[in-house]
Amino acid sequence: MKALVYHGPGESAWETVPDPDVKEAGDAVVRVDTTTICGTDLHILKGDVPEVRPGTVLGHEAVGEVVETASGVVSVRPGDRVLVSCISGCGRCRFCREGAYGQCRGGGGWVLGHHINGTQAEYVRVPNADVSLHPLPAAVPGADAVLLSDIFPTAYEVGVLNGRVRPGDTVAIVGAGPIGLAAIAAARLYSPGRIIVTDLAPARLDAAKRLGADVTVNAGEDPARLVDDLTDGLGADVVMEAVGVPETFELCTRMVRPGGHVANIGVHGRPATLHLEDLWIRNLTITTGLVDTFSTPMLLEMLAAGRLPASSLVTHSFPLHDMERAYEVFAHPAETDALKVVLTSENLPQPPLPIT
Amino acid sequence: MKALVYHGPGESAWETVPDPDVKEAGDAVVRVDTTTICGTDLHILKGDVPEVRPGTVLGHEAVGEVVETASGVVSVRPGDRVLVSCISGCGRCRFCREGAYGQCRGGGGWVLGHHINGTQAEYVRVPNADVSLHPLPAAVPGADAVLLSDIFPTAYEVGVLNGRVRPGDTVAIVGAGPIGLAAIAAARLYSPGRIIVTDLAPARLDAAKRLGADVTVNAGEDPARLVDDLTDGLGADVVMEAVGVPETFELCTRMVRPGGHVANIGVHGRPATLHLEDLWIRNLTITTGLVDTFSTPMLLEMLAAGRLPASSLVTHSFPLHDMERAYEVFAHPAETDALKVVLTSENLPQPPLPIT
Amino acid sequence: MKALVYHGPGESAWETVPDPDVKEAGDAVVRVDTTTICGTDLHILKGDVPEVRPGTVLGHEAVGEVVETASGVVSVRPGDRVLVSCISGCGRCRFCREGAYGQCRGGGGWVLGHHINGTQAEYVRVPNADVSLHPLPAAVPGADAVLLSDIFPTAYEVGVLNGRVRPGDTVAIVGAGPIGLAAIAAARLYSPGRIIVTDLAPARLDAAKRLGADVTVNAGEDPARLVDDLTDGLGADVVMEAVGVPETFELCTRMVRPGGHVANIGVHGRPATLHLEDLWIRNLTITTGLVDTFSTPMLLEMLAAGRLPASSLVTHSFPLHDMERAYEVFAHPAETDALKVVLTSENLPQPPLPIT
Amino acid sequence: MKALVYHGPGESAWETVPDPDVKEAGDAVVRVDTTTICGTDLHILKGDVPEVRPGTVLGHEAVGEVVETASGVVSVRPGDRVLVSCISGCGRCRFCREGAYGQCRGGGGWVLGHHINGTQAEYVRVPNADVSLHPLPAAVPGADAVLLSDIFPTAYEVGVLNGRVRPGDTVAIVGAGPIGLAAIAAARLYSPGRIIVTDLAPARLDAAKRLGADVTVNAGEDPARLVDDLTDGLGADVVMEAVGVPETFELCTRMVRPGGHVANIGVHGRPATLHLEDLWIRNLTITTGLVDTFSTPMLLEMLAAGRLPASSLVTHSFPLHDMERAYEVFAHPAETDALKVVLTSENLPQPPLPIT
Repeated sequence: MKALVYHGPGESAWETVPDPDVKEAGDAVVRVDTTTICGTDLHILKGDVPEVRPGTVLGHEAVGEVVETASGVVSVRPGDRVLVSCISGCGRCRFCREGAYGQCRGGGGWVLGHHINGTQAEYVRVPNADVSLHPLPAAVPGADAVLLSDIFPTAYEVGVLNGRVRPGDTVAIVGAGPIGLAAIAAARLYSPGRIIVTDLAPARLDAAKRLGADVTVNAGEDPARLVDDLTDGLGADVVMEAVGVPETFELCTRMVRPGGHVANIGVHGRPATLHLEDLWIRNLTITTGLVDTFSTPMLLEMLAAGRLPASSLVTHSFPLHDMERAYEVFAHPAETDALKVVLTSENLPQPPLPIT
Repeated sequence: MKALVYHGPGESAWETVPDPDVKEAGDAVVRVDTTTICGTDLHILKGDVPEVRPGTVLGHEAVGEVVETASGVVSVRPGDRVLVSCISGCGRCRFCREGAYGQCRGGGGWVLGHHINGTQAEYVRVPNADVSLHPLPAAVPGADAVLLSDIFPTAYEVGVLNGRVRPGDTVAIVGAGPIGLAAIAAARLYSPGRIIVTDLAPARLDAAKRLGADVTVNAGEDPARLVDDLTDGLGADVVMEAVGVPETFELCTRMVRPGGHVANIGVHGRPATLHLEDLWIRNLTITTGLVDTFSTPMLLEMLAAGRLPASSLVTHSFPLHDMERAYEVFAHPAETDALKVVLTSENLPQPPLPIT
Repeated sequence: MKALVYHGPGESAWETVPDPDVKEAGDAVVRVDTTTICGTDLHILKGDVPEVRPGTVLGHEAVGEVVETASGVVSVRPGDRVLVSCISGCGRCRFCREGAYGQCRGGGGWVLGHHINGTQAEYVRVPNADVSLHPLPAAVPGADAVLLSDIFPTAYEVGVLNGRVRPGDTVAIVGAGPIGLAAIAAARLYSPGRIIVTDLAPARLDAAKRLGADVTVNAGEDPARLVDDLTDGLGADVVMEAVGVPETFELCTRMVRPGGHVANIGVHGRPATLHLEDLWIRNLTITTGLVDTFSTPMLLEMLAAGRLPASSLVTHSFPLHDMERAYEVFAHPAETDALKVVLTSENLPQPPLPIT
Repeated sequence: MKALVYHGPGESAWETVPDPDVKEAGDAVVRVDTTTICGTDLHILKGDVPEVRPGTVLGHEAVGEVVETASGVVSVRPGDRVLVSCISGCGRCRFCREGAYGQCRGGGGWVLGHHINGTQAEYVRVPNADVSLHPLPAAVPGADAVLLSDIFPTAYEVGVLNGRVRPGDTVAIVGAGPIGLAAIAAARLYSPGRIIVTDLAPARLDAAKRLGADVTVNAGEDPARLVDDLTDGLGADVVMEAVGVPETFELCTRMVRPGGHVANIGVHGRPATLHLEDLWIRNLTITTGLVDTFSTPMLLEMLAAGRLPASSLVTHSFPLHDMERAYEVFAHPAETDALKVVLTSENLPQPPLPIT
């Protein structure tokens, strides 16, 4: 089969590799109909995630059809259309027993495109298939559903639930890339009073408006002051970090009200400064997290009911074999205005056109 | 009356000042029978808390007798023996309505010995007396009860509740000064499986053992590694910072398990480094906080029932007029082994002898 | 002034009574611009609430203008436009300290039109004004705001929060009178997956649809079976009782899934049967409650932002002096299709026309 | 092998049956070293649980040694000493994913001695062994550990956690049989201020005292009034029903304070009356539940650390082949003062003597 193989920092290729087979009792093999690229994949390509060994197929998001299941799999069978979750939990360890699949100690967690071959391929072996695969109604387009492999559960669990968004809250979101935009949509499930979004890119702020931001502000225009003004000097009830650099994290801690929540969603490569000399007295709650995907079934139901604007995040679509071109587009959003790019196998109907 | 007056960094004196009177409808005046000194008072004396103006009477902890109440006070009356809480809430603002008195926006919060004259005096005016004063049963010694003005509610709310200690948990406490020791006692209310305490001072580790620590480790002996060894490499469920310097905060974030809680209790004067490059993926919850004292009535009941070992924290007692000597002893724990020092007015029976 | 006075079971009159004055330090007097009638008022008139003494002015819902405040009131002053909450808490007792004003032990709770004279009058004395009165922006119509005196906080706190509605949930609401309809609107703040409403009156089911019910079913057509069919035999995640008779409560316990919540909102006059022989094993949570109104400030903000469809519940409006006619209309919904009826003083612009 | 076989209402025998084998990929076979009898087994024998078919081996509690595992089992292997949980979850369904194993929709839940052969036998087949078996340290006596198959997790999850016991609470427990006594021990993990226990049998009230009840009262002496007197007329914060008849449930609802919790632990055969005419206004939370056993690993750690007084509940011990005599003793507590009776296979050291 064809797959995108990582060959060390800066090196990857869409090339022929052996087809995957089931190996363990919980495995399934899925034919990939739809996949996408995550910001984390770009980090891997840069060499920032050294535990990914050269030779690994990248990708941890997919929609497809089950083509083979091993003896221990009971929830799906060949022919089923499924969502592949970015997280696969063993289901037995203390973390999985609490639904914390992302922290699985039994060989699960984020493994696809990380410790084992991933989804940017024609086929993928999925371990712990009973926990990792979600049957998908025929009516849900793959290009929408694939956003529930990772970014929507991440935005919901790590942003909205960790941040404890409640009706009426003022919610500030720092960063309007795909994950920040998904956080807008996810936050709206709790009817905040106001969502304030900041980013450097005007196109992304426009997208934020379309997804339901009430107020947008360019990151160059003192967003902390704007939040202050809008809240009588109190600060936002919930602030979500959706960029992943120290400066934006520190901005979040300046934007939050006493007693409020800072939910970090961003993937960070450097330490941040925590101004405890100011913050020790402010009753803050700061959370970090990798997604667990316990919310995926609920989000799939909301998507099927038309209550999650997933397709609004997709700006470009490509045939699966144009993987390298898709990476180019996704890696240069300043020129391409790319948010999520979707790749589909040729025998599928293409997803809807890019938003304009 | 006599009182300890702050005269700017490094300057204070036990001197004669005017007796306080009620000023506002919610005020009461309390004759101080018992008071104590907080680590925060030392910070003020050093000039670290610039909003305290020269001329202010210090102190925010006391037990005494109500001698006067203004027109709006309904919960207490002259002659009542009361605990003075370090926090006084207006009872009306959005924070007070949620029991977050420490964040009061209506002129309350931590005001005694901070924005107004405090308790290290023969008399003290207490605003918002209905919220700030707690009737005290005659059987409860003042030297025990005074520890519920601040450190026990702080240890319980900011350490134990924010840290979400649960039965069976491994709890690590960094720092075994008065607040860390109170945190041991408070954590035990939730029956953790194991309490691990670290400090540099052997005498404080001994006190930790007496208060119920299961394991103590000198801070020079790699406490993070010990926690690792005791938890199969996982880390502690809950870690409490009870020192207030960047190094100990950062140690806490290395000691905590994925999905665990770091509860900061310490008062910080400098920023800390938050290693988000490691922590973003670990599902941590980090909390900060000034006490709200919503738990004071419950803690008073537990104390009255003999279920809080408050007196174990008191190492020295002095007559009220020996305030300056008491500060000397409290400010030099390395030489004096002081934990809490208690001051009582002369007409009171003295508190129990120091622990040995 | 004129007021609706209760004279014992079945007897009441719109008659002249003395104007109210402030009596205690926390009192305010409000000139009533807008009031309404609650189902509870009908219960009182029938004699079902014997603690209401003859001679009491009825009513616990109002919007008006503060005309006088006593010495202890700090949050409002004469001239302020305010919402009068149905609940007034002392702010000091253990319940008020937790925001449970409805259970106040210090003389508050539901007192207006119950233990003291109420709001169906030209003027009303409101005790504990700092907790009970909420400043009202000029832009919010009184006929909308008055629904936040009681039914919206009740629907939200006692129905939605007690029932723990979460995004994606199947919510069933039994009863589509004013409180059931408000519960639909309040539940939508948490983006349930599906709201199923049952009632006997087709007009009320139509109103339920307008307010956002996804499915309505006449109570005569086996609503428990419908819920069963729609949920693969599992039952609803949350069921709210919004009628107040034993049969509907028992229906709720048949509609709920294992692990689900039954939130009782209805006011009951007779015991119900709890089928513990079936329910002991089903991990249910059943809640009851009088509203506490801690959510009123948030709901007011949502109303001001256009996010609560309060006006949809108002079917009739009358001048204040037509109080007796308004009671007639409200007491006979089968003939009048009345939901909420609103009464306004003559010098006010009239509220919008009835919905059609 | 030998096993206790149910032959319809009133009929059972310790007789020879075929040895069990693994059938499905998740199965393990355990040699029973220790088992016990549950009140539910008596209900089954009376015919109250009709889904138990004649021919079924009874029992759902055991400690033993794994002798065989099927292909899909990874957590245990032959030779491991294990606790057999009364609940076995599929680990995949929506309930198991939330740790609600007791409500498993995938063929798990309470199956042993209910839908399939149970533990009152020399060997037992345990489905879903990865979730249902817990490795047991050698130092923990089987006679203690077997109480964690059912009654301790039940008391903790269904009584203490559902009842939301908090430090300082007044907790009332109605019924001092094994489950009520276990609830005393479990409640103490949260340091309530006071535990009040009622029962009809003086011997059980004595046992309650030994386990930590602060106050005991004979059920004939108006326990609701005692609770009232001890709480200034307020009622208990948490009340647990540990009997299973309508009268005791109704007593619980009279004992609880406004805003309090009634946690039903008892197994009921008849409906109770819920006095909604009084309770609708009191902000109660009433819970029911079958145990999920998510807490078993934590309770095992506490037991191993000597922090659960499990052995205090065992009054009698028998060799395994004296099963029928053990049932006689357990079924007549009024004459035998039996609490838990423990049966052990002959090749084991006998458990400690009965408490006296």
